[in-house]
Amino acid sequence: MIAAAGILSATQSVINLLIEGFENPESKEIERLEDMRTMFAAAQLVGRAVRRVRQVEGAAYEQASVAFDLSFLFGGQIAGSDMRLFQIYAAGNFIECSQDMPFMQIGEPKYGKPILDRAVTHDVEIYDALKIGLISMDSTLKSNLGVGPPVDIAVLRRDVLTTEVDWRIEATDPYFHDLRDRWSAALRAAHMAIPPPPYENMRR
Amino acid sequence: MIAAAGILSATQSVINLLIEGFENPESKEIERLEDMRTMFAAAQLVGRAVRRVRQVEGAAYEQASVAFDLSFLFGGQIAGSDMRLFQIYAAGNFIECSQDMPFMQIGEPKYGKPILDRAVTHDVEIYDALKIGLISMDSTLKSNLGVGPPVDIAVLRRDVLTTEVDWRIEATDPYFHDLRDRWSAALRAAHMAIPPPPYENMRR
Repeated sequence: MIAAAGILSATQSVINLLIEGFENPESKEIERLEDMRTMFAAAQLVGRAVRRVRQVEGAAYEQASVAFDLSFLFGGQIAGSDMRLFQIYAAGNFIECSQDMPFMQIGEPKYGKPILDRAVTHDVEIYDALKIGLISMDSTLKSNLGVGPPVDIAVLRRDVLTTEVDWRIEATDPYFHDLRDRWSAALRAAHMAIPPPPYENMRR
Repeated sequence: MIAAAGILSATQSVINLLIEGFENPESKEIERLEDMRTMFAAAQLVGRAVRRVRQVEGAAYEQASVAFDLSFLFGGQIAGSDMRLFQIYAAGNFIECSQDMPFMQIGEPKYGKPILDRAVTHDVEIYDALKIGLISMDSTLKSNLGVGPPVDIAVLRRDVLTTEVDWRIEATDPYFHDLRDRWSAALRAAHMAIPPPPYENMRR
């Protein structure tokens, strides 16, 4: 599975290179994503595709004063090996998800990060994780009006090797609508339940 | 009142220019903050001080590959005039707080913005606003480990012309500690109370 953020033209070019194949600068062989034997090798290939697109298109973006800003989440499992998830940056470098870092975000991460920081741990149940992810998206949708539905979701369980969920949540989705209403009401109740600050007339 | 974010050396230079005075490039007169007759003129002066510091120090920052990144919140009231609040950017330009934009943030704004977006309106009671501001700071402290206490707070009421609160909240402050615990517990309860997502086995 691959998710992209940033300049759409560049991320689409990366995806197309991965499918159609491109030359490895060292071995001179044409490599495609489906040829990779390990998830690590596949993540390296995504990184090389990013660098290749930057090499070809980067100067033109610079001339147009457009930052070459993109990132990917790339995850999955090859039968018999571990499930892995990588975050790939605009320089083609990448980091891996781990127990210490139980979630990754790309795109507009900050508005939705506080609830993930509080609620997502490595052992959270997978549909709880999905629910918390949707709450996180709700914060982003509320605070950045440039981000909007649909929200594409996917669930991939270890050792199943196929997606359990592959769905698009539209703006009219009743569950997401209800989640957003409940979350708003709960936050309002939560801050109203906290006693007022005791700092009245306190001066240094 | 003035709050600063960004490169400390540059924001301190701005503050010092405002106190000691500097030449107006058009009138050639030395101007200090306390000489300004209106809040708008004072905000313009802050903007000119920012540009002056950039003019003097900007090239050196650039050589050191340090972005000239700073911003200010500048607010207050001159007797007989309206209370006003401005956000001043690194280019010396500024915008004003209004009913449509009932709060302003500088520094690391995004983690703490969702709760402000939901809870702060123009007519919120002033200590409720302070409480919501502290909840917003809590999200920022949790999600960016580079941000830490103390948290300086100030409350200035219209037509009082002196601060009602001017206080430093230290890491050990019992109210802030309690607020953070209550908020964490309330968020946990809130997301656990939302029903699980209905998307299991849904595929396009």
